[in-house]
Amino acid sequence: MSAPKKFAPKKVVLAYSGGLDTSIILKWLQTEYGCEVVTFTADLGQGEELEPARAKAELLGIKPENIHIEDIREEFVRDFVFPMFRANALYEGLYLLGTSIARPLISKRLVEIAAACGADAVAHGATGKGNDQVRFELACYALNPDIKVIAPWREWDLTSRTRLLEFAEKNQIPVAKDKRGEAPFSVDANLLHTSSEGKVLEDPAVAAPDYVYQRTVAPEDAPNTPEFIEVGFERGDAVSINGEAMSPATILTKLNELGGKHGIGRLDFVENRFIGMKSRGIYETPGGTVLLEAHRGIEQITLDSGAGHLKDSLMPRYAELIYNGFWFSPEREMLQAAIDKSQEHVTGTVRLKLYKGAATTVGRWSDHSLYSEAHVTFEDDAGAYDQTDAAGFIQLNALRLKLLGARDRRLKD
Amino acid sequence: MSAPKKFAPKKVVLAYSGGLDTSIILKWLQTEYGCEVVTFTADLGQGEELEPARAKAELLGIKPENIHIEDIREEFVRDFVFPMFRANALYEGLYLLGTSIARPLISKRLVEIAAACGADAVAHGATGKGNDQVRFELACYALNPDIKVIAPWREWDLTSRTRLLEFAEKNQIPVAKDKRGEAPFSVDANLLHTSSEGKVLEDPAVAAPDYVYQRTVAPEDAPNTPEFIEVGFERGDAVSINGEAMSPATILTKLNELGGKHGIGRLDFVENRFIGMKSRGIYETPGGTVLLEAHRGIEQITLDSGAGHLKDSLMPRYAELIYNGFWFSPEREMLQAAIDKSQEHVTGTVRLKLYKGAATTVGRWSDHSLYSEAHVTFEDDAGAYDQTDAAGFIQLNALRLKLLGARDRRLKD
Amino acid sequence: MSAPKKFAPKKVVLAYSGGLDTSIILKWLQTEYGCEVVTFTADLGQGEELEPARAKAELLGIKPENIHIEDIREEFVRDFVFPMFRANALYEGLYLLGTSIARPLISKRLVEIAAACGADAVAHGATGKGNDQVRFELACYALNPDIKVIAPWREWDLTSRTRLLEFAEKNQIPVAKDKRGEAPFSVDANLLHTSSEGKVLEDPAVAAPDYVYQRTVAPEDAPNTPEFIEVGFERGDAVSINGEAMSPATILTKLNELGGKHGIGRLDFVENRFIGMKSRGIYETPGGTVLLEAHRGIEQITLDSGAGHLKDSLMPRYAELIYNGFWFSPEREMLQAAIDKSQEHVTGTVRLKLYKGAATTVGRWSDHSLYSEAHVTFEDDAGAYDQTDAAGFIQLNALRLKLLGARDRRLKD
Amino acid sequence: MSAPKKFAPKKVVLAYSGGLDTSIILKWLQTEYGCEVVTFTADLGQGEELEPARAKAELLGIKPENIHIEDIREEFVRDFVFPMFRANALYEGLYLLGTSIARPLISKRLVEIAAACGADAVAHGATGKGNDQVRFELACYALNPDIKVIAPWREWDLTSRTRLLEFAEKNQIPVAKDKRGEAPFSVDANLLHTSSEGKVLEDPAVAAPDYVYQRTVAPEDAPNTPEFIEVGFERGDAVSINGEAMSPATILTKLNELGGKHGIGRLDFVENRFIGMKSRGIYETPGGTVLLEAHRGIEQITLDSGAGHLKDSLMPRYAELIYNGFWFSPEREMLQAAIDKSQEHVTGTVRLKLYKGAATTVGRWSDHSLYSEAHVTFEDDAGAYDQTDAAGFIQLNALRLKLLGARDRRLKD
Repeated sequence: MSAPKKFAPKKVVLAYSGGLDTSIILKWLQTEYGCEVVTFTADLGQGEELEPARAKAELLGIKPENIHIEDIREEFVRDFVFPMFRANALYEGLYLLGTSIARPLISKRLVEIAAACGADAVAHGATGKGNDQVRFELACYALNPDIKVIAPWREWDLTSRTRLLEFAEKNQIPVAKDKRGEAPFSVDANLLHTSSEGKVLEDPAVAAPDYVYQRTVAPEDAPNTPEFIEVGFERGDAVSINGEAMSPATILTKLNELGGKHGIGRLDFVENRFIGMKSRGIYETPGGTVLLEAHRGIEQITLDSGAGHLKDSLMPRYAELIYNGFWFSPEREMLQAAIDKSQEHVTGTVRLKLYKGAATTVGRWSDHSLYSEAHVTFEDDAGAYDQTDAAGFIQLNALRLKLLGARDRRLKD
Repeated sequence: MSAPKKFAPKKVVLAYSGGLDTSIILKWLQTEYGCEVVTFTADLGQGEELEPARAKAELLGIKPENIHIEDIREEFVRDFVFPMFRANALYEGLYLLGTSIARPLISKRLVEIAAACGADAVAHGATGKGNDQVRFELACYALNPDIKVIAPWREWDLTSRTRLLEFAEKNQIPVAKDKRGEAPFSVDANLLHTSSEGKVLEDPAVAAPDYVYQRTVAPEDAPNTPEFIEVGFERGDAVSINGEAMSPATILTKLNELGGKHGIGRLDFVENRFIGMKSRGIYETPGGTVLLEAHRGIEQITLDSGAGHLKDSLMPRYAELIYNGFWFSPEREMLQAAIDKSQEHVTGTVRLKLYKGAATTVGRWSDHSLYSEAHVTFEDDAGAYDQTDAAGFIQLNALRLKLLGARDRRLKD
Repeated sequence: MSAPKKFAPKKVVLAYSGGLDTSIILKWLQTEYGCEVVTFTADLGQGEELEPARAKAELLGIKPENIHIEDIREEFVRDFVFPMFRANALYEGLYLLGTSIARPLISKRLVEIAAACGADAVAHGATGKGNDQVRFELACYALNPDIKVIAPWREWDLTSRTRLLEFAEKNQIPVAKDKRGEAPFSVDANLLHTSSEGKVLEDPAVAAPDYVYQRTVAPEDAPNTPEFIEVGFERGDAVSINGEAMSPATILTKLNELGGKHGIGRLDFVENRFIGMKSRGIYETPGGTVLLEAHRGIEQITLDSGAGHLKDSLMPRYAELIYNGFWFSPEREMLQAAIDKSQEHVTGTVRLKLYKGAATTVGRWSDHSLYSEAHVTFEDDAGAYDQTDAAGFIQLNALRLKLLGARDRRLKD
Repeated sequence: MSAPKKFAPKKVVLAYSGGLDTSIILKWLQTEYGCEVVTFTADLGQGEELEPARAKAELLGIKPENIHIEDIREEFVRDFVFPMFRANALYEGLYLLGTSIARPLISKRLVEIAAACGADAVAHGATGKGNDQVRFELACYALNPDIKVIAPWREWDLTSRTRLLEFAEKNQIPVAKDKRGEAPFSVDANLLHTSSEGKVLEDPAVAAPDYVYQRTVAPEDAPNTPEFIEVGFERGDAVSINGEAMSPATILTKLNELGGKHGIGRLDFVENRFIGMKSRGIYETPGGTVLLEAHRGIEQITLDSGAGHLKDSLMPRYAELIYNGFWFSPEREMLQAAIDKSQEHVTGTVRLKLYKGAATTVGRWSDHSLYSEAHVTFEDDAGAYDQTDAAGFIQLNALRLKLLGARDRRLKD
């Protein structure tokens, strides 16, 4: 079978951070394809200035009207992070999906900008070994089945640090002194988390060195006194801290500060990538870890067991879909519809203790509470509950077990 | 419909703790039914002397041959706790099922003793509002469909503290001075956990007072220096601590000491009881919390994603079955068969940091590891992985999404 | 524990068929409780005249304003049957839930009438052995937690046919000659199905006699020539037959005629009742069987695999909820939200062959189709699909399997 | 990234049918790679003579010791078909997985023969658009992570019928006259089923022509008199027909005869392929359709609801795994362990009616039956069941619904 002719883009929207790698990609797209490049740089809360990306793009010959710099933090938290937290999503039991949840939004903007400016392709800087390539591309194809996605790391021959730097030098891309050597590990960050992986972290038997952590203090260095906070919820989403109403991104920013200060949300994790290999990552999700604990706390009194247990059973699949890049898929939307339906009464307040690496619920209350002290009390319940009902309840739950036991006995005889 | 004639037992095996409540039950069975009572007192690691129960039973007129006192800690951990931990079972996301998992074993022994001594009934001291009545009775009926289970709390009229004490006095049951007043909350304990509920804990908005905690120090009072330990696993079960092989119950005892010392395993929780109401409990599961973290750590490198994700999706149902009292049921056994199948290679060692309330994995290694540094490395992988494969992988995962996107576009036009 | 004082209703809304059993219940409520009785008789498509029920109620002393007779067939099909069929719901693989799905609607009307007329209780004629008591009562309690439900069959002492007839005679309830003897089996019917159980059907080894079937001809007696029909769907619901638009109830009525004529929809089934025993039923669901086949046919081309497989995995739980009586529950509503979300594009037409007991899809087409002949064709696909993509797709799906195989090999050496 | 060097095999084991396509592959492997070819031809019950494959292989220059012809029908049914039928596996609700289940066994033998004869690769004749390439290759890689799999259809340039015939002619491959033209559709067959797809079947709106069906008569042409048979089961597997014990393959052969004669097991189906597109197939599974009905019949009386409902909920995932090619995977083996556990008592006999396209259960009996006429009877049950138990059962199942209803009411006020 003859190789299909390689696609030659005319205009490409590039997810551009302003860093060395995506600058090299920018230039490579220009030289390899002779195409016009449009840059998209987003503030997702990664904690870096965006304006230097503009200057750098201009330096690399991008026309001002082709440079898109946007603060999308509110959209990120409101339409992606919060819906996900309604599900208490944890990938493989522990990971809060901080990287996974950012990719669909970036892809959505890439596709939208491409449509607006008539680009026929988008490009990203994810490698061929990771999950992010899958997440970017599945999202882009779902949103525009005709778009082409260019993944330079899977195409080019700049396969070593040396060759990358040579390419940069040859193409007048400035390389900061401290970027000449290789970073000791790779980092991704946004308002939800910081992830670190690779290099010094590649042996899962060896503890991660302290300098890996960027967003949280070590629990040992956290304050010796606990701090108590109250998080308010409406329909499953956090809406206030200590009684003060805040926007979604503001809440997450504030929870990050609080969590980070108390050493909360560190995770040393070996996970299964969608593409079939295991990898080890160090995640810091301070605000998200507090938020998950708080959300569980408010659900404890506002969800009944039917809704709660169904949610628990759907969650692993939901988390897997997000991890694997299927945010924009019918099945994720179906699960979201079920989850959102469950959150109609998830409204109230949770009190949490933050101390030395842990956020723990110490109290919760709500007008929507299903907790009935009248029923559960050890004291006289004034007829709220008739204990004799339990006998019939048990007898009928036991009936099939008795029939099974009788069969076993019959067959033994 | 006329009431069915009440069953009158001739010989009853009573789950007897030696405490005031079960002593009253013992006497009540004798007086209400005029039946012979056989006592069964088990050491499940609850941390109480058992011999006083013997003396007390004798005092209440039980014949020596009718007094059964057994240390069943090894069976408890080996055949109940460890199989459950293979599943990473958490009820409603957080609860380690410490009470739930003990009931089937107690029931099993009650039924076995009844068979051995020709008793026609067993009796327990659980109330009509809780889960334990269900767990005891479902297990007993499953193991012997013809056994009768007597639940005095659902039958008698001793419905207040005053009437209980009157009954005790009238029947020469000694009441310790400190038992005259009511306990400020109710406690259940075994080698896996201590649970506290009721009375001062009944308002879920109010933090649990410090004096509720019995088995763990407060994180604030835990050592200021972390402690590192290594837990060894074979086929999903812990087999050693710091390289020293130990029996199941010894391991859990040791992990309890370590966890308790570091303030690990406290949980303030509002849960859904099987019988339909919410209740609030304070759980302390120091060793179990360490064990869960360690088990997850070793699974991270020894389970592949297919097995791991299936386990994750089955877990909520499995935990619910145990919580609801269906340990001895075909569906729990089916899930156990699946889970046990997954554990054949869950062998290796996990290194954990214990500090101020948290146990965190900091390293894991195994001859059975599926982690391949050769594949995942950021460095040259010498051909272990072909990045171009990812393009095809993504294209075919995207195909249905593209067809969906094309439909949407077509219908809009 | 002293028995709780029996509730004495003042005004009861009775689900009244006009038949002998519910007439006896009517009278028994009057005599046992001295309460006012309000009757509710619904046309759910069971195929019986309703006006005789009015005459009979009046004869038994019910005031005209207390007699409620309603045709609720459209609501039944639109709001209960069709939503359920969106899920392709089958209980235990085979049963189309014809009885289960009618109970919530009857309960809803009972509770609404009770609210309108100030009744403090409702009553039904289901026995203490079946599922229907559960379905009626759970639905009533969910819709009005303060309502009382009276189930005479669980209360009274009319436990034999003889005593029932004596009670009727003593209370001037007319008994038709042909009702003096006992029916050879028990029947429930509505627009979706007829069920028959009990008596001559109680041995599951023995084939059901021909006279049990009431709504379908035997396949042997069905026409010797197939009939072809086309069913149109919009958003998951049938909206037309052979191009003619019809209301929900009209469509189901028409499908019943067609299915019944061709001997379609008979089921001889042993099922697990919620209350723990097995029972054997003969079900006839002619229209529903055709509808399920048609719905599957249209989903085949309009649902993608992500949505379809998620639906398939949720279906057993959804069907179980309906069977067990949890229509009005948060978890059924969550699942419904997910299922309804999936149906947005389930629009198109299915061609079916009806012949000798079977309805089979022979063609389906839709503007919303996801089927792409351009992709699947054995002929030249003009580049729609690149076969080389499959190599990468397989390699990455195989990666974890290779790593597993390599471990096995390593450990054997 | 430079293309990885193409693998050049030295010795290849080819899945060889003896037909034109695999003969061309055989020759192409010889000419393209200059490698030694070993042929494997299996009797899976496809209904073709195998010895002509030997003659043809010899003609194409294969050494006699390199020609492997095996009858693996018993292994196929015993170790693949029967375990799958224990699960009542249906892909997308309807498809009995006849093609999917044969691929793992063929792959297993390919890998085993490769190991025995020192081959470094295997080859198959599946195209790049279908599921079979995935199934062959995943199975091979799972069983031997170092094996190479060659898929000529994804590699070569013989992309039209004309070029294939030219290649055949040039290489002295005899082409039967009736193979010169293209077949009007593509066929796969084994003891479980015949599938037909492609060409005249590519429009899912158009009914399949009669000449497509090869293994079943049309229901219209089936006998006008029903036939009744009895199928015996032991631990979930069929072991006898009409009381006569038979081997697995003999039973399936006999059921195929019976089913085919009565027009049973035809399916016109549009399915979702793993690789992302929809395809339309015509399946004939006469014996399998009878077997599924019979297995469900025996499970109805021998499985309790706990086991049955868990099986139902696991089935869609299990079927999907087999369809997608993951037979040899940890998760399929975990599910199999659970399913096999459930079958320990699935022993007994089912009586079926075969008539005009349908197999229907009309009776079932077993020493292992859980059906209790004593409990379910409409007659006096002599105390087997206490109807008053139902009241408590309902009350406690209703409790959470009442609490939900009370909240709704409270919030409205």
